[in-house]
Amino acid sequence: MTGPNARANSLVNSQDRALRERAAAVIPNGMYGHESVRLLPPEFPQFFARGQGAHLWDADGNCYLDLMCGYGPNLLGYGHPKIDAAAAAQQRLGDAMTGPSPVMVELAEAFVALVAHADWAMFCKNGTDATTMAMMTARAHTTKRKIIVAKGAYHGAAPWCTPVPTGTLPDDRAHSITCLYNDVESLEAAAAAAGDDLAGIFASPFKHDAFVDQQLPNIAYAKRAREICDETGALLIVDDVRAGFRLARDCSWSSVGVKPDLSCWGKSIANGYPISALLGADKARAAAGLIYVTGSFWFAAVPMAAALATLREISASEYLERSEQLGLMLRAGLREAATRHGFALRQTGPVQMPLILFEEDADFRIGYAWSAQMVKRGIYVHPWHNMFLCAAMTERDIAEALQAADASFEALKAQRTQLVPHTGLMAMLAARH
Amino acid sequence: MTGPNARANSLVNSQDRALRERAAAVIPNGMYGHESVRLLPPEFPQFFARGQGAHLWDADGNCYLDLMCGYGPNLLGYGHPKIDAAAAAQQRLGDAMTGPSPVMVELAEAFVALVAHADWAMFCKNGTDATTMAMMTARAHTTKRKIIVAKGAYHGAAPWCTPVPTGTLPDDRAHSITCLYNDVESLEAAAAAAGDDLAGIFASPFKHDAFVDQQLPNIAYAKRAREICDETGALLIVDDVRAGFRLARDCSWSSVGVKPDLSCWGKSIANGYPISALLGADKARAAAGLIYVTGSFWFAAVPMAAALATLREISASEYLERSEQLGLMLRAGLREAATRHGFALRQTGPVQMPLILFEEDADFRIGYAWSAQMVKRGIYVHPWHNMFLCAAMTERDIAEALQAADASFEALKAQRTQLVPHTGLMAMLAARH
Repeated sequence: MTGPNARANSLVNSQDRALRERAAAVIPNGMYGHESVRLLPPEFPQFFARGQGAHLWDADGNCYLDLMCGYGPNLLGYGHPKIDAAAAAQQRLGDAMTGPSPVMVELAEAFVALVAHADWAMFCKNGTDATTMAMMTARAHTTKRKIIVAKGAYHGAAPWCTPVPTGTLPDDRAHSITCLYNDVESLEAAAAAAGDDLAGIFASPFKHDAFVDQQLPNIAYAKRAREICDETGALLIVDDVRAGFRLARDCSWSSVGVKPDLSCWGKSIANGYPISALLGADKARAAAGLIYVTGSFWFAAVPMAAALATLREISASEYLERSEQLGLMLRAGLREAATRHGFALRQTGPVQMPLILFEEDADFRIGYAWSAQMVKRGIYVHPWHNMFLCAAMTERDIAEALQAADASFEALKAQRTQLVPHTGLMAMLAARH
Repeated sequence: MTGPNARANSLVNSQDRALRERAAAVIPNGMYGHESVRLLPPEFPQFFARGQGAHLWDADGNCYLDLMCGYGPNLLGYGHPKIDAAAAAQQRLGDAMTGPSPVMVELAEAFVALVAHADWAMFCKNGTDATTMAMMTARAHTTKRKIIVAKGAYHGAAPWCTPVPTGTLPDDRAHSITCLYNDVESLEAAAAAAGDDLAGIFASPFKHDAFVDQQLPNIAYAKRAREICDETGALLIVDDVRAGFRLARDCSWSSVGVKPDLSCWGKSIANGYPISALLGADKARAAAGLIYVTGSFWFAAVPMAAALATLREISASEYLERSEQLGLMLRAGLREAATRHGFALRQTGPVQMPLILFEEDADFRIGYAWSAQMVKRGIYVHPWHNMFLCAAMTERDIAEALQAADASFEALKAQRTQLVPHTGLMAMLAARH
């Protein structure tokens, strides 16, 4: 199903347009949340009918190499036979029952065996569930209130952390203190501001905020966060929801040699089946046992069976090395193609979770136009959010993406003087400040 | 797979005990949330290996008629062929992709067509997601802060609503005002306390708090809640997560003729597949479009396909009449059996969502002993949480439950003088006050 023919898109989007009209009648704004295309170029499809491996087909049948991987869940490929077989087998037995299935114990054991800092696991549904449970556990452990979060970091969409405060209250964030990611002085100032009331420090495994260059973690910053927690009794929390198992077969901060007390997981841990997790060290076990958290489907067995199969594949396959290798190929090829056409890219973050911004493109108009060109050529890229590579991608896929990039840069040159910024994006960015 | 033989349980629980020991090593307290059996009699199994129709099999192979229905998700029967076929067909196409599937639009349309007050829908995963979104929408709509909730009502497990405050802060609930369910004066006092700062009134469709008798909604209370919202501009929110589609093929307050502005759904809407929803009237549409809420798996297509198939079955089948009829049979039969053995039951709430408490049993010791007897006889009942009937149950199942009840009351008579309260439950109830 791959190959250039599969992505010789017709550019027809009549089904997508018709669905958007119907959606506008029965869904506020026609769509919401991170999968809404309202802040993307108009060429982006909103609805997808099918996914297989590294590819998606939109409602009009156009095929895309999906460099977003579902915003993270697709780690090993859509419709992965082993994962889907494990899930289907469990579905025949039972899913959401009156108690968990034995597979929950196996899954907790598998996580504890794989993730070095973890002595226990709790499962939930949303990434936000895991980060909220981490915050509650830190407050229960310390009986203190303040949490430190890096400015601009995304830790979920609950009132205490949603990036858009509409509908929330200042009270929801009254005890959040911000610092600058990778800035030791700023972290120390935040800890000083917390005084003797520090419950926890949240850290993204690397800076993967939207709209700005990504940054790998500075070792000094990670170590200082650990020290501050050790000095004050606060808990160190790595929010690995987005990056978990994409950088390591362990917590992502294993790369900088720092073990958190808690880590938050989700997205890819069951290759797309709905499950997230809070993992913790023994130190935090008693506190985790004191908070009351639950959800209607948290004990359902099917996503747990899928997660168990995913962890097995993570341990047994070269998925990680493969996605890194393809990421290197993509990054180098894009740099070369951009240069050839007179564009300067800022490609940041781990190669398997790339963010691609253009130099001298403060209002993103160049990035938007290039992304739209790529999408028209069947390569789904994002103009301001980090992307994801998955293990189902091949060198041929990357070669096709680079071919599309070449043509897209060429087309962009011709458009360059007529570009205008995306009005919806401009309004949203203005509202953030 | 039904019939007395299927539930002639061996009483062997060695697998369950072994799993609990393993779980204790890798899960805080060995289990958490509403499916933990820590607050239930020791005879209750923690782990289930299989579910089919109205029955569950525990890890040791003991079979139970499941009167908890997964705490709500099982509306039509575990492993329902039509629902599972719809989900499996969608799974072959795609689940968590980079955008929603067209099925999301169909599902929103189906909800709006079925639920009278609803003009739009948003989908999420947990019931708590839906109630939190309702709160945020009410605050965005009114730009006011206070929300009224009934004392003891369960609206989820986020910091603003979890019944156990450990790990949360007073700030999380700073703008919640409580009233007494079904008490108009108390509701008016709460509204007066909110002054001109009232954002919304939350209402359970009926009082289904744990540990106390259930109460159907008083029409005067429901109408006054509506009036107060109309007078102040606040939004009226019915939290139908637990009871949705069990009382009506519409919002549960259709039974009292009151339309909310928002309603929260989950549990049974996809017969066990993980999806919840916020439905709203046009009045609240703009505000719902202003809040930022999302989740990794909220746009996944499989649970939406399952929900669509479930809504079709809700419209086309007699599932509701059937569960009511079986509920009436159960209630009358239990009353008779209890009386015959000299026990007085308090059976409250809708017959298809029964709560069974014993008179003169303030510390629940009689209920615990009776529930344990029932479980030993293969009938899974709950001593302090409302139960659920599902459409897969038969008159024969209820007859068997009544036969087991008769034997359980008989056994209870012999035990009566030696009963002691459950220490874990007593500690928990003491901590709540």
